[in-house]
Amino acid sequence: MPLLSTRLLEDAVNEFARLPGIGRRTALRLVLSILKRSPEEAEQFGNAIIRLRKNIAYCSVCHNISETEICSICSDHRRDKSLICVVEDIRDVIAIEKTEQYRGQYHVLGGIINPIEGIGPSQLNTTSLVEKVRHGPVHEVIMALPATMEGDTTVFYLSKKLHPFSIKISVIARGISIGGELEFADEATLGRSIINRIPYEHKT
Amino acid sequence: MPLLSTRLLEDAVNEFARLPGIGRRTALRLVLSILKRSPEEAEQFGNAIIRLRKNIAYCSVCHNISETEICSICSDHRRDKSLICVVEDIRDVIAIEKTEQYRGQYHVLGGIINPIEGIGPSQLNTTSLVEKVRHGPVHEVIMALPATMEGDTTVFYLSKKLHPFSIKISVIARGISIGGELEFADEATLGRSIINRIPYEHKT
Repeated sequence: MPLLSTRLLEDAVNEFARLPGIGRRTALRLVLSILKRSPEEAEQFGNAIIRLRKNIAYCSVCHNISETEICSICSDHRRDKSLICVVEDIRDVIAIEKTEQYRGQYHVLGGIINPIEGIGPSQLNTTSLVEKVRHGPVHEVIMALPATMEGDTTVFYLSKKLHPFSIKISVIARGISIGGELEFADEATLGRSIINRIPYEHKT
Repeated sequence: MPLLSTRLLEDAVNEFARLPGIGRRTALRLVLSILKRSPEEAEQFGNAIIRLRKNIAYCSVCHNISETEICSICSDHRRDKSLICVVEDIRDVIAIEKTEQYRGQYHVLGGIINPIEGIGPSQLNTTSLVEKVRHGPVHEVIMALPATMEGDTTVFYLSKKLHPFSIKISVIARGISIGGELEFADEATLGRSIINRIPYEHKT
């Protein structure tokens, strides 16, 4: 789309088109929707973006997003400091917190090992995890990483690094989703759900 | 998603989620991608949005987006002022300009008649079109509106309004797209392409 009637429009479309998964056609649609708002609303939107990046910080303990030096999860004394759940990014923290099933700490890697994209352990928050385990009262590290080649590689790398310390290392269960029909599950998941079957507790 | 770790993140996600077709999950993904940029880049993005809405204006002749009183198309003396192409919005102007097949003027309605959404002729730039035809040297108005109930209603309304003036009114051709297979075309389009068939010019 070489021609847009004004530089202002062109600039805004270019900015939106740089977002992941947003093409120029969608970017133009989004920009036109902003034109339909009031200047005050557009200003509020623009400022939310500027303020976000300017003022955001990361928790020095778990690397989660935080406005303070230590995030609200790490500074919560009711949470188990000996249990660490390793995740790829902040979205996973949000997803797990929503389940209300987990009362330990987190460790946000900021990505996973991906040789094709040139992401190695040194670009991720791996050293701080090892140091945390070395110095802390950690008894278990749960790997909550994607069930992909990259996720498995990352689990393998981290478990090797953490092996010297006598802690428990676990991975989250994979299997048929609750409410899921067996016939619609993919073979790999179904197969793994049979291998990793758990004893049935008969309640009388 | 009730819990996001900070107010800053929550604000930014809410702003993105207000855009058309962007849900909260996508909004979060977009916001996290902005966090990976430099503060300068985020500021540039935010300012592009603010500046866009603050400084944009509409051409007083055709209602296209413009930074000047009269847009670059309307002020181009090489373009045919007696030919007006009526379109729904700015995206259509961009699409038609890309074809490089049209050298007339435009008239941007800013929407089409849609009684269900409460959009009538008075909310659209219809009066200025009639006035343009009344006073100008217009000899033809091309209706380039969507082939929908709403588009057809708008064409009907406008053609009624323009009928008193002895000008030609035309609609863009509908038919099988170039390179399109007949078997994949919908019935309505295929049917119309037969009814509106054009004489074949045999070149020897």
